[in-house]
Amino acid sequence: MTGLVSLVGAGPGDPELLTVKAVKRLQEADLVLYDALVDRAALQHAPQARWAYVGKRAGRHSIAQETIERVMIRRALRGERIVRLKSGDPFVFGRGGEEALARAAAGVPVEIVPGVSAAVAGPALSGIPVTHRGLASAFLVVSGHAESAYLPVLGSLAPQAATVVVLMGLATRARLAALLLARGWAGATPAAIVLAAATADSHTWRGTLADLGNAPLPETEAPGLLVIGDVVQVSAQLEEMLSNQSQPQRATGV
Amino acid sequence: MTGLVSLVGAGPGDPELLTVKAVKRLQEADLVLYDALVDRAALQHAPQARWAYVGKRAGRHSIAQETIERVMIRRALRGERIVRLKSGDPFVFGRGGEEALARAAAGVPVEIVPGVSAAVAGPALSGIPVTHRGLASAFLVVSGHAESAYLPVLGSLAPQAATVVVLMGLATRARLAALLLARGWAGATPAAIVLAAATADSHTWRGTLADLGNAPLPETEAPGLLVIGDVVQVSAQLEEMLSNQSQPQRATGV
Repeated sequence: MTGLVSLVGAGPGDPELLTVKAVKRLQEADLVLYDALVDRAALQHAPQARWAYVGKRAGRHSIAQETIERVMIRRALRGERIVRLKSGDPFVFGRGGEEALARAAAGVPVEIVPGVSAAVAGPALSGIPVTHRGLASAFLVVSGHAESAYLPVLGSLAPQAATVVVLMGLATRARLAALLLARGWAGATPAAIVLAAATADSHTWRGTLADLGNAPLPETEAPGLLVIGDVVQVSAQLEEMLSNQSQPQRATGV
Repeated sequence: MTGLVSLVGAGPGDPELLTVKAVKRLQEADLVLYDALVDRAALQHAPQARWAYVGKRAGRHSIAQETIERVMIRRALRGERIVRLKSGDPFVFGRGGEEALARAAAGVPVEIVPGVSAAVAGPALSGIPVTHRGLASAFLVVSGHAESAYLPVLGSLAPQAATVVVLMGLATRARLAALLLARGWAGATPAAIVLAAATADSHTWRGTLADLGNAPLPETEAPGLLVIGDVVQVSAQLEEMLSNQSQPQRATGV
């Protein structure tokens, strides 16, 4: 009798952006291991399960990865259904691959339940399509956490050749912007910062690549992502149209 | 009394990868406009609604985009709840931006409900993480449909600097592979083709960039995506470990 470890994407923040399959796995779970950015509202789907916080964030207690591994494997081999709930998608900077390999190596059945990634949904919920006909037919998602991660790709990509989405890039945004400008990107390239995407506290700054490094932001511990590319202007157009709607007017031609 | 047009991502194919919010919008809908790749099982969530197929695919009838626009706007202004159900995510090559702008310009409230994109979930369900520590800290999603779309980005990206995911690249894969090889990518770079991701008919080919152009594929009308990068080897490792599990053995060290 062997259990199952499900690596489940919890989506970008809004608990309604969980998938139907994620909800099912939560409902059947004996144990749920969740990380820092997962909305606690997901709890409602698994009141029967033990919940353990295993996230890592500054100033908060965190359980060592090795301990998590050991607990998961022991319990799964006992027949328990374990959900490893990860914010966004497990395979977009979620270390899902490492966890899947560790489970498989230990002889534990493992499955992946993809989630809505903040890399696409974060911009989308601020009105920014990562692709848009005539503006972008490619998008790049990169971690801004370390220069070794973003330098090879951002240092080579031709200016304006793709929408650039940077996760974990709040702290390094001045350096990232300087790199792109040095590489030949226009200072006037539209850019945005989306804080706390898909939550009630969401905040969007919109400006240009030249201003990105010094954009004034509210103090927050929330995660943020950067979007650089002409597609950012779509959100400005949408906002203008929608604000016009709040004035009394009638649509014409319909 | 004004209705609402919801641009809803239906996910990559598996109806369980609809989000909770997508299901809610379907349940409340008066009219659902869906495209070719949306699984008909999504129908079950909206038996009360009128369903209209508005997809475009070779050999099938398709309704002109203008007609769709007109119908949506007229009905929304009458107070109806309209779901525009798009496969994957509405903003990943889904023309969601164009539809949102058209709705907003016509004075119709519009919302975006992000979905699970095949660009990430397709590889994931074949065991391929688009990012993986030590292998890739960036991924690029590009349309293989037209050279004008992929040439600027694939022609500039430094070899191996990111995982490359190509949607709509089945027909152009030989040219895409040749372009990357000419740009200096190693012929031994792992590569995969995922057909009909997230469906019962899913099929994965795995090989190298050198073989990608001539990979033998089953005859299919299903959509396919290409993945190029070292992360493809993770799926090979996972597969090997999981096949070992089917032989009688006991996990050790736990």
